[in-house]
Amino acid sequence: MQTETRGFREHHVAIIGVGLIGGSIAAALRKRFPECRVTGIGRSRERLQRAQDVGLLDGFSTTIDRESCPPGSLSIVCLPVGHIAEAVREISACSSDNSLITDAGSVKSQIYSELQGDSIALRRYVGSHPIAGSEHVGFEHAQENLFVRRMCVVTPESAERSDVERVCALWRGIGSHVQIMTAAEHDRVLALTSHLPHILASVGAGCVTTELLPFTGTGFRDTTRVAAGSADLWAQILCGNRQFVTQAIQTAEHLLQRIRSAVECGDQQVLEQTLQTAAEVRRQLKHPSNADGSESTGSD
Amino acid sequence: MQTETRGFREHHVAIIGVGLIGGSIAAALRKRFPECRVTGIGRSRERLQRAQDVGLLDGFSTTIDRESCPPGSLSIVCLPVGHIAEAVREISACSSDNSLITDAGSVKSQIYSELQGDSIALRRYVGSHPIAGSEHVGFEHAQENLFVRRMCVVTPESAERSDVERVCALWRGIGSHVQIMTAAEHDRVLALTSHLPHILASVGAGCVTTELLPFTGTGFRDTTRVAAGSADLWAQILCGNRQFVTQAIQTAEHLLQRIRSAVECGDQQVLEQTLQTAAEVRRQLKHPSNADGSESTGSD
Repeated sequence: MQTETRGFREHHVAIIGVGLIGGSIAAALRKRFPECRVTGIGRSRERLQRAQDVGLLDGFSTTIDRESCPPGSLSIVCLPVGHIAEAVREISACSSDNSLITDAGSVKSQIYSELQGDSIALRRYVGSHPIAGSEHVGFEHAQENLFVRRMCVVTPESAERSDVERVCALWRGIGSHVQIMTAAEHDRVLALTSHLPHILASVGAGCVTTELLPFTGTGFRDTTRVAAGSADLWAQILCGNRQFVTQAIQTAEHLLQRIRSAVECGDQQVLEQTLQTAAEVRRQLKHPSNADGSESTGSD
Repeated sequence: MQTETRGFREHHVAIIGVGLIGGSIAAALRKRFPECRVTGIGRSRERLQRAQDVGLLDGFSTTIDRESCPPGSLSIVCLPVGHIAEAVREISACSSDNSLITDAGSVKSQIYSELQGDSIALRRYVGSHPIAGSEHVGFEHAQENLFVRRMCVVTPESAERSDVERVCALWRGIGSHVQIMTAAEHDRVLALTSHLPHILASVGAGCVTTELLPFTGTGFRDTTRVAAGSADLWAQILCGNRQFVTQAIQTAEHLLQRIRSAVECGDQQVLEQTLQTAAEVRRQLKHPSNADGSESTGSD
């Protein structure tokens, strides 16, 4: 792990998929680099027009071509992970030597695998994963500060150093901390820090029926919050990181089994130790959105 | 399940354990029923004096006796679940026919078991569990509205109807919805709606190491929030509801296993269905503290 530094110098950024993430990148660029042209690419002309009307885009297109992703531009693919590699391939087919492609996907190795055999796409692509989200979907909820003080992982693999620096400059330019990792390292880490928590939230929600919801408190509410997210998008993410997600679930299964054994035997000491280890990790989390240091730990 | 109605008519409420919950009950009574005398009972004279100084208490005592829990009073035991039955027994030893005892513990059957053989305690005790909490501990963070629009489960078991009504009137008087259940029904439901979510939060936090915390987002933050709570208090709660917590963990283990199998096989359809079922339950949660209807479902 290491970090890079260099200034943002893009003249044209194309955003493929103008949803919450794509829209927030557009809003952040608008505010910080008004001289950079931002175009949007998507399926719905009507929605793209609206994104332009609210000031997020300079122009838009429903096709990937040399006009929407012109030579020298930086394209950012903000699509569900199952559609990223295909878009990267399409963009690279109309790219020049100084064009560059990145993305915002939650898995990385799968995208590189899907690009195997396409040497142009592999040369022009540098993977990214901004670890930032929001409670909403759609560009209507775009936030120009969504990436500020958030971590963005950049995965160079075999990309040229200058291209990696360009991608890092993008994320730093909109306020993120950048961390360089291999795609596999990213996937191993995110399986534990993001994919497993999502699964555990779904398990928690999936164990209750709607009649029991009146008897839930803030603990259930927060623990299961992300489970309400898109099942389609998350199935793509989890299957896109199969090996590491499987390992992460196995780790969770062992821990759950240890807790069950302690409860079954009434071994309060082992149980307390296990809960204490988890509590100590959690208490060290200082999240940017809890900058006042207050962490809600209440039970009910 | 059924609900009762009747007005609050207490003249003296004794709160045993003036922490966040006990302090919030005191604050709520103060505001709504200023004519009701509220006394606090605890171990630390200094902290009780401070609670009185900030206006939460009319008086306090470090012992349970006929002066601190006088005949006719309603005593509310707000101690960790492992200490509730003992306090109920002590209070009942100095009680009169018109004295009543309730509590705020997260498990109920264990308390009734511990009271077996003490016919006076069993006659004077009606179990309660207000499903409300907060991000803080200590009476300094007491909130007079902590129980407003929150559910409180009351477990009459063999108590007299008029005593149950008195306890219901307390909780309704400070703004809660009351639901009557058996102690066993309460424990079965809460194992799924509160105890299991806490365990899953601890599992999620326990699967990461502190070096990985910079790569967590809002999903991890919320999913694991409650895991930072007191390991001691939670070990008491979980061991105090052994049978139902074990069953709840087994339910979670089956679901987790189904998700792992689907991920291992790359069966995106089964995975999506499983996540979708959980998402549908979670989306039906309309929590009072999210009265604007916005539910954060963002991924990262």
